[in-house]
Amino acid sequence: MPLERLSSQKCFGGWLQRFRHRSAALDGDTVFAVYLPPQAEQGKKLPVLYWLSGLTCTDENFMQKAGAQRLAAELGLILVAPDTSPRGPDVPGDPDGAWDFGLGAGFYLDATETPWSRHYRMHEFVVDELPALVEAHFPASDKRAISGHSMGGHGALVCALRNPGRYRSVSAFAPVANPMHCPWGEKAFSHYLGADRARWREWDASVLIGQAREMLPILVDQGERDAFLVEQLKPAVLQAAARAANYPLTLRIQPGYDHSYYFIASFIDDHLRHHAAALCG
Amino acid sequence: MPLERLSSQKCFGGWLQRFRHRSAALDGDTVFAVYLPPQAEQGKKLPVLYWLSGLTCTDENFMQKAGAQRLAAELGLILVAPDTSPRGPDVPGDPDGAWDFGLGAGFYLDATETPWSRHYRMHEFVVDELPALVEAHFPASDKRAISGHSMGGHGALVCALRNPGRYRSVSAFAPVANPMHCPWGEKAFSHYLGADRARWREWDASVLIGQAREMLPILVDQGERDAFLVEQLKPAVLQAAARAANYPLTLRIQPGYDHSYYFIASFIDDHLRHHAAALCG
Repeated sequence: MPLERLSSQKCFGGWLQRFRHRSAALDGDTVFAVYLPPQAEQGKKLPVLYWLSGLTCTDENFMQKAGAQRLAAELGLILVAPDTSPRGPDVPGDPDGAWDFGLGAGFYLDATETPWSRHYRMHEFVVDELPALVEAHFPASDKRAISGHSMGGHGALVCALRNPGRYRSVSAFAPVANPMHCPWGEKAFSHYLGADRARWREWDASVLIGQAREMLPILVDQGERDAFLVEQLKPAVLQAAARAANYPLTLRIQPGYDHSYYFIASFIDDHLRHHAAALCG
Repeated sequence: MPLERLSSQKCFGGWLQRFRHRSAALDGDTVFAVYLPPQAEQGKKLPVLYWLSGLTCTDENFMQKAGAQRLAAELGLILVAPDTSPRGPDVPGDPDGAWDFGLGAGFYLDATETPWSRHYRMHEFVVDELPALVEAHFPASDKRAISGHSMGGHGALVCALRNPGRYRSVSAFAPVANPMHCPWGEKAFSHYLGADRARWREWDASVLIGQAREMLPILVDQGERDAFLVEQLKPAVLQAAARAANYPLTLRIQPGYDHSYYFIASFIDDHLRHHAAALCG
């Protein structure tokens, strides 16, 4: 799989690069960003944190706004950010042009329904294809961590919970924690997965956490003034499910913070250290 | 002068807020952003770093992408970022719609020529009106520092050099260091200031540094792979002028870095510490 390098920019002594390539899982071209810390030039394989962004985002939002490169450069962590959905002229989007479904809103699952199932396979892409690509083309080890924001927080939790052994560490910012019972999730799941709600359970962190075969400690930060907290995010459901399953979840409600990247930037260092402890220990 | 608060977002324990107000200097409404670190709630007046952004930017770019709030919160520095030009339905822009002149490209000077002189008075706004507003409405002291990027680096240097006593500290990232002898500057100055190049000298840091009545140590960072370095930025001219005048300028050429906010983010902490040493000492 050849990678076309779109850009390369020095950042905190390392390099932020963007690549376009043909994805088998997504049946089309896609773009991802990778931050290579200065240690990447020393010939050793480095652990990787995969970051999944939220609705409407691309590979760029996290790299531009989270301020994660500073500490990643210090810790020797590679950061990888994929796009949030398939894109391209033949990829169907929301029929009404809404921002909460379709393009920019792949929900990190593998769609089963027509016309979505041909391209909307972000779960397979994130869990299998992207790490294989990263580990083949960069000085990246198979020590993987995963995190994300909002829809991407949901994605990070679900990718880790569905794939024991694949990640050493997981965290999330303001995740859509119980998607089968919130408007964003219900819209996405009903299109991508069909009307049978029993199949939605396979893509809902608050269900999966009760069936977990692996107990990776989860760190979740949630802004207390997040406008989406009550209707869309529902961290209390995830917390209750974790308690019932005796699953190690740390949920921090951060007073005054909203849903934005200013919230993420404020706490990203804690998440990087959470992951580094698992990846580098 | 009433301020209309447009937003307020918690960030690193402090608050990032945006305000719209009527500006006398700009003869119209303008927007600025202020970051109040956590110490702002303790009743003491805090020093202020004014940040001037580059071509095409607004008050938002720096706050979203530079990652300055983290250390500002630690140091107890207020950050203030104005827009880069007047805006509004009656503000003339570039006749050809170009991005390097007019809207988003005020060049931080006081225009003398029709039709620019009515609104394009960013120097007066930045040096006088904005600090008066900030010091009246926020827990801000009159200990001021100024910095900026590209066109805003030019702005920061010129504001400091033209106004001895007004700032305690100045720095710049990739400043347009000799605007009267580069395409961006020549275009802007010929419109805003007219054809008489003798008057351009009052707005060119490489000229002003030779006439300085106050020796504020200047820190300049410049990316070595900056695509605008040779044609537009010309830090060597500033350095030669500083040497001739025995002016304390530290120019750091940073290998591999470009003109982007990834460059700024990589070195913003050094600049904040440079300013804090002068402001808090």
